[in-house]
Amino acid sequence: IQNSFRIEYDTFGELKVPNDKYYGAQTVRSTMNFKIGGVTERMPTPVIKAFGILKRAAAEVNQDYGLDPKIANAIMKAADEVAEGKLNDHFPLVVWQTGSGTQTNMNVNEVISNRAIEMLGGELGSKIPVHPNDHVNKSQSSNDTFPTAMHIAAAIEVHEVLLPGLQKLHDALDAKSKEFAQIIKIGRTHTQDAVPLTLGQEFSGYVQQVKYAMTRIKAAMPRIYELAAGGTAVGTGLNTRIGFAEKVAAKVAALTGLPFVTAPNKFEALAAHDALVELSGAMNTTACSLMKIANDIRFLGSGPRSGLGELILPENEPGSSIMPGKVNPTQCEAMTMVAAQVMGNHVAVTVGGSNGHFELNVFKPMMIKNVLHSARLLGDASVSFTENCVVGIQANTERINKLMNESLMLVTALNPHIGYDKAAKIAKTAHKNGSTLKETAIKLGYLTAEQFDEWVKPKDMLGPK
Amino acid sequence: IQNSFRIEYDTFGELKVPNDKYYGAQTVRSTMNFKIGGVTERMPTPVIKAFGILKRAAAEVNQDYGLDPKIANAIMKAADEVAEGKLNDHFPLVVWQTGSGTQTNMNVNEVISNRAIEMLGGELGSKIPVHPNDHVNKSQSSNDTFPTAMHIAAAIEVHEVLLPGLQKLHDALDAKSKEFAQIIKIGRTHTQDAVPLTLGQEFSGYVQQVKYAMTRIKAAMPRIYELAAGGTAVGTGLNTRIGFAEKVAAKVAALTGLPFVTAPNKFEALAAHDALVELSGAMNTTACSLMKIANDIRFLGSGPRSGLGELILPENEPGSSIMPGKVNPTQCEAMTMVAAQVMGNHVAVTVGGSNGHFELNVFKPMMIKNVLHSARLLGDASVSFTENCVVGIQANTERINKLMNESLMLVTALNPHIGYDKAAKIAKTAHKNGSTLKETAIKLGYLTAEQFDEWVKPKDMLGPK
Amino acid sequence: IQNSFRIEYDTFGELKVPNDKYYGAQTVRSTMNFKIGGVTERMPTPVIKAFGILKRAAAEVNQDYGLDPKIANAIMKAADEVAEGKLNDHFPLVVWQTGSGTQTNMNVNEVISNRAIEMLGGELGSKIPVHPNDHVNKSQSSNDTFPTAMHIAAAIEVHEVLLPGLQKLHDALDAKSKEFAQIIKIGRTHTQDAVPLTLGQEFSGYVQQVKYAMTRIKAAMPRIYELAAGGTAVGTGLNTRIGFAEKVAAKVAALTGLPFVTAPNKFEALAAHDALVELSGAMNTTACSLMKIANDIRFLGSGPRSGLGELILPENEPGSSIMPGKVNPTQCEAMTMVAAQVMGNHVAVTVGGSNGHFELNVFKPMMIKNVLHSARLLGDASVSFTENCVVGIQANTERINKLMNESLMLVTALNPHIGYDKAAKIAKTAHKNGSTLKETAIKLGYLTAEQFDEWVKPKDMLGPK
Amino acid sequence: IQNSFRIEYDTFGELKVPNDKYYGAQTVRSTMNFKIGGVTERMPTPVIKAFGILKRAAAEVNQDYGLDPKIANAIMKAADEVAEGKLNDHFPLVVWQTGSGTQTNMNVNEVISNRAIEMLGGELGSKIPVHPNDHVNKSQSSNDTFPTAMHIAAAIEVHEVLLPGLQKLHDALDAKSKEFAQIIKIGRTHTQDAVPLTLGQEFSGYVQQVKYAMTRIKAAMPRIYELAAGGTAVGTGLNTRIGFAEKVAAKVAALTGLPFVTAPNKFEALAAHDALVELSGAMNTTACSLMKIANDIRFLGSGPRSGLGELILPENEPGSSIMPGKVNPTQCEAMTMVAAQVMGNHVAVTVGGSNGHFELNVFKPMMIKNVLHSARLLGDASVSFTENCVVGIQANTERINKLMNESLMLVTALNPHIGYDKAAKIAKTAHKNGSTLKETAIKLGYLTAEQFDEWVKPKDMLGPK
Repeated sequence: IQNSFRIEYDTFGELKVPNDKYYGAQTVRSTMNFKIGGVTERMPTPVIKAFGILKRAAAEVNQDYGLDPKIANAIMKAADEVAEGKLNDHFPLVVWQTGSGTQTNMNVNEVISNRAIEMLGGELGSKIPVHPNDHVNKSQSSNDTFPTAMHIAAAIEVHEVLLPGLQKLHDALDAKSKEFAQIIKIGRTHTQDAVPLTLGQEFSGYVQQVKYAMTRIKAAMPRIYELAAGGTAVGTGLNTRIGFAEKVAAKVAALTGLPFVTAPNKFEALAAHDALVELSGAMNTTACSLMKIANDIRFLGSGPRSGLGELILPENEPGSSIMPGKVNPTQCEAMTMVAAQVMGNHVAVTVGGSNGHFELNVFKPMMIKNVLHSARLLGDASVSFTENCVVGIQANTERINKLMNESLMLVTALNPHIGYDKAAKIAKTAHKNGSTLKETAIKLGYLTAEQFDEWVKPKDMLGPK
Repeated sequence: IQNSFRIEYDTFGELKVPNDKYYGAQTVRSTMNFKIGGVTERMPTPVIKAFGILKRAAAEVNQDYGLDPKIANAIMKAADEVAEGKLNDHFPLVVWQTGSGTQTNMNVNEVISNRAIEMLGGELGSKIPVHPNDHVNKSQSSNDTFPTAMHIAAAIEVHEVLLPGLQKLHDALDAKSKEFAQIIKIGRTHTQDAVPLTLGQEFSGYVQQVKYAMTRIKAAMPRIYELAAGGTAVGTGLNTRIGFAEKVAAKVAALTGLPFVTAPNKFEALAAHDALVELSGAMNTTACSLMKIANDIRFLGSGPRSGLGELILPENEPGSSIMPGKVNPTQCEAMTMVAAQVMGNHVAVTVGGSNGHFELNVFKPMMIKNVLHSARLLGDASVSFTENCVVGIQANTERINKLMNESLMLVTALNPHIGYDKAAKIAKTAHKNGSTLKETAIKLGYLTAEQFDEWVKPKDMLGPK
Repeated sequence: IQNSFRIEYDTFGELKVPNDKYYGAQTVRSTMNFKIGGVTERMPTPVIKAFGILKRAAAEVNQDYGLDPKIANAIMKAADEVAEGKLNDHFPLVVWQTGSGTQTNMNVNEVISNRAIEMLGGELGSKIPVHPNDHVNKSQSSNDTFPTAMHIAAAIEVHEVLLPGLQKLHDALDAKSKEFAQIIKIGRTHTQDAVPLTLGQEFSGYVQQVKYAMTRIKAAMPRIYELAAGGTAVGTGLNTRIGFAEKVAAKVAALTGLPFVTAPNKFEALAAHDALVELSGAMNTTACSLMKIANDIRFLGSGPRSGLGELILPENEPGSSIMPGKVNPTQCEAMTMVAAQVMGNHVAVTVGGSNGHFELNVFKPMMIKNVLHSARLLGDASVSFTENCVVGIQANTERINKLMNESLMLVTALNPHIGYDKAAKIAKTAHKNGSTLKETAIKLGYLTAEQFDEWVKPKDMLGPK
Repeated sequence: IQNSFRIEYDTFGELKVPNDKYYGAQTVRSTMNFKIGGVTERMPTPVIKAFGILKRAAAEVNQDYGLDPKIANAIMKAADEVAEGKLNDHFPLVVWQTGSGTQTNMNVNEVISNRAIEMLGGELGSKIPVHPNDHVNKSQSSNDTFPTAMHIAAAIEVHEVLLPGLQKLHDALDAKSKEFAQIIKIGRTHTQDAVPLTLGQEFSGYVQQVKYAMTRIKAAMPRIYELAAGGTAVGTGLNTRIGFAEKVAAKVAALTGLPFVTAPNKFEALAAHDALVELSGAMNTTACSLMKIANDIRFLGSGPRSGLGELILPENEPGSSIMPGKVNPTQCEAMTMVAAQVMGNHVAVTVGGSNGHFELNVFKPMMIKNVLHSARLLGDASVSFTENCVVGIQANTERINKLMNESLMLVTALNPHIGYDKAAKIAKTAHKNGSTLKETAIKLGYLTAEQFDEWVKPKDMLGPK
């Protein structure tokens, strides 16, 4: 319908707002001024949901400090709808806006104000009886609400997506490590044949990496749990009330079940986002771990006939549009692509984090976008990789045995018996002649067949003595 | 409707496909196996459009080589619809799939096949009379089509979004440089007061940066114009025809108006994506340039009363939800956030580009996603920055004059007359006493008032003699 | 002297070794095969020292397990000399060698062997009575010793250079924060004028950042304290003894006073270096913090007449070869350059850390080089920045007061009294007319002079109420 | 000797200078103020040499403009000694100094001044008859000389080290590609078995990558050839002469044989170093190429018995201190470590390049250090990799043939004859049963033995038809 607009105004003048939208003039203005990237670049929904939680908490606290309960209640209900994702269509703004996220804070204020007005029977855009600034944003500033929402969003994504995904992967790898505990295989160092280990031992390294990934991410969380709310414009807490900061943090903690506290220093909390750089760094380390694991698995599963062939990976889809029968380690590929993306996102976060000036870092939307992107991708990819690859991995024991028994590196077992130099001679001679270690060792006169059989037992090479 | 599915099959079995979609079994399978990131992570539409162009070109060439004209024509029409973006809803796959992009190639083959079948009155999913592999993918492989689509998409985005955006910014900065040619201002080095230059000269540096940004991007394009098509599975061109590669490249060139050619070495074109790393590098350099320019402009426009205040930036929106009357350099902020993102994207592209193995790099979807992201963001942000900031920049001449005349750095003009050491003495003494250079110079007995006035003329300090 | 060489041999043949050097054939061979980068690229001395500590510890433990005490003792003495840096000239190898650091491990084995032989009156190069492999490297492999030395070196550098440097900087900033506690100044957000805070509050944000930098680095250390020793070639501990791993870690802990323990999973400890990526990540976050602080200080100290001018930075050297009297924030510049380097080093570490294969990561020398580089640079730069800049910073109170009193942003104090919209009107009108807030507010009829004076008090704007 | 100091002074006061050094007070002061990183962090010698060239050129031009020929000549001779590296010991300053490189410019001025004074029989430190500022630095500023030296140094390193190294590598790979032209082998995509190609074709991809690496680096050079000299303090050319810029560039071109020209815009040339970011980007792309090549070669050479084993790499040194007879792809490891370092260096350069402010970028020493580091490492590593690995690579034809003949992927040759679906059935059945393609195809009744032999010929699968 042509005329389905209402007129709203901000301090810059009036603007047409679509009648079916709760947002107001400042949101519309932002869509006009920042035509960058298109719909895929919208502020991530976890940020919007976090704002819903924050605005609900703030309304409760504001009521404690005297805000009209009718208004407070309406704000709370509207904020809950935002937190539940019911109003996602009313948040059209892209990440590439003001670097403080002010416009998204105003978008939230406008949507909650109008939705609350609607609940109370008022007129959309009238700012009566619920004013976006005076009521919804009461005791707040974009400068403290946006970083608060960043931390809430990051913490929730870590707890709901990232850590569960990693835990699932950890458990699946751990189960495989135990399943493969008795399978002795050749080790590879420098990508070259080396002394044996069990396939279970090999997988135990992956288990440890994923376990530590979770340790690292959790170690970064204490700074993420610190909320800027109460710092208002520059960190002083001007125009808010003593106790507001602590109470809001407590409410947010109650609403989310996560141990949020008020930030001990609000100046740092607005002007720097070191906590997000730190969390991104933990995810960057996780990306390295997952890249290593996924790379190993695709190489160990390479073949079917001309690769290493020690693992049989699940066949999930046709592998090639031209080569029939080909099955590819596609889950490994998705995982390693995710890892590369996370490394890139980390640099974006780092550059943004290093460029704050004075009382405010203005790379906020970009930073949280990348942190959330990394968390989601790592979490989702871990689940996908687990379900569609790890749980279905089988050991190709026939192949593993063949490779292990042909290996020249079993010669290492002879070092304590005949010394390094003679052992080297055996290995090099066997390599040159294509002969077995045993034949060669005997021919060189270094030991007897009996000694060889006694000394070179792969299952005795799996640990210290 | 519950039952609005048809049954399609791939080599792995049957699957339910929504009746209102043209895609088929392999696409559905991918959506089941790769639940990573959600809808914002879908394969970028420029890749889909590029595939439309490529498939159309391939069908034309295949007809030359004997493909039934009825089938070829139907493919061409369907491919055109893909290229025009009419079928975007039929491409649900995310970037985080197989690293060769095979599933997107199959998605395209399925959509074109089914749409062509529909046009010819056949049954969706029957693969008759237009088979997705045997006809739509004829003489092709994912391994050569996906990198071809990557290059087509990148080239189009560069030409339609990135370069026009930079040109617009260049022209606006150039106009400002000329407008400001006569305004003499203090220079700043090390962020400290330095000798004067004109505001036009200062802006001319920005103009040069943006001009060279375009030069750099264009310098990377010759490798982007090289298409992998014709390499098929590993670069040999197996199962295609002599001449197919050259003809497809020529058709794509004709369809796009861009100088595409067939890649001189198909092995490199499949196994490495150095050309995308290179283009990303050119955009990374561009990001540095734009970061510098946007940073300068926001600092020069800082204030209104306690900053440098030499520039007056356009007021586009309310700046703060708590500080009324505050106007922020939001376009600079969007631009610098974009710059940080591009630097991060570049690292993702670099990591992906370095990790190809043997005959195929399998970071393809991730790489093109980041390259397209950077191109679009830089292009869009340049337009937004130009329209909403640069064109409206005014010089605050009163402030500029005041700062310039108070400057101690005009003392440099005395070096050739009284030597470096005496000049330094004057400047340091004036600084200590808060006095003017002229007073100090005379008081120190180094020169007369007349000499000072003759030697220290800002307008004579703007160039060599 | 032309002939001052002795002949040594490795399994590949004989080689000339300079008579005045303790290293042997494998070291010489490496210098011939890896002519990359020149002397500045030598293995960092902290790695060599760490090897001295490790080899001493290993010799002690080997004696417990039966190594001839005479040999063990000679090894210990020689190893101590390595640990003390007395033999640094005997380690010519560059970082760009084998990715396992094997050649440096052999360099250490050869130097200790020959030095021990010398102490025992034997002939250099004879390997009698102290064999580099059979004795010095007993129960060890390059694959576990090199990562062990990496962790020892990193931990020592963190404790001796990085943390003390940061602590010093923290304390100096904290002292300044307290010194400046009463100085009220204008805040700046978006680089624009904002509501006031104290200079002490502003510095307290920096204090918090540096405090958390130390927290972050310490949080990464538990994984660094884990030593790979005892894992030998692939992590199984083949050819070593039960208990060797734990005993060596305990000895190293005793020798260094740092809480080293044996790594719980040796497969992870050889095949991945996530712990170093993590530590590098903590330093990357620190770099962001220090970049922000140093940037703020140089901008706040910009001038002397045309900048912000709120801080007076110490003058340490002549600033310009052409502009006399110019003093530059050179310590800030060194610090921000260091920060950029650390961000780059972090990417190198990340790329290396992500590319391990199977049982061994072979980016070891590169990774530890970068980690040590970052730690040293951050530590040294923190000391230099503290001593030559921070401790000498003075507040330019006159300038600070002037800017604060002229500010339009004090209007924010009126929000609770007259509402956001009217406050905005005042600020915008005053800005347009170049008038004061007070004049404007009265003229607009929003309040009385008395009300203005009562409501707008900067010292009441420094916190919540 | 205790007293072997002379007293020199700068504008800040007097300082003790070692009598055996040509540098003066400002250099000494810098060593006191910047104790960061130690001797390995000294300004790279190519920068010092470039300064020698520049100062010589400037003296010649200054003589044209009236500088006393006796003084000019002494400067030229002293500058030549600097350019030849004879005075390297007199440049103790580290990279981590002022971000403009002013202190190194003064170090150069002092050394040349004192050496020239010495030649003319004057007293060191007297500044008579050759003054470091008034004569050696005449018509110059740190702000234009340092970026000029950066470009000269980068251009020389590219031409003397980087490009020759890459050319050598290119030629060796190209020779191998031709040597291996007739060896048909299995291809690998997704690390999995794929259709065949020749080993020569595989290597031709590497050849193309290295060829384009050189193309990319050369494409970046036009901006590197632009010299800032003549811009003096802020780019205006204040205190220099009309024509100085052009003449100095011409002299430098003559002295180096490289096509240097004066920068078209000096403001850009001082305030931004996009040209170095661009060159670093070209080296970053090169690093990706070399990482890919070196990775392929180590995997193709993996074994000796449990890897892919298609290539036999030269044995250059003992591979393991514990596993005798083991030979590792150490040159590949050095190369991939170098590649990772270059990627990291590139981020450091990018961060520095993006952070210039106003008329001067003050990350200059850090930027050029990283650019030179990357150029040297890539050049040296290419030579080492070529000489110690590439030229000695042998094809293991027996192994290659075995793998190729066992491959299931030859089935692709059947697509045009029996269609994709049947071909897939054959491959999957053979894979399941461990049977050959031929047996399976016949058993399934899809074709005859004769047809199989006619259709499946590896040598017919190496190109289009």
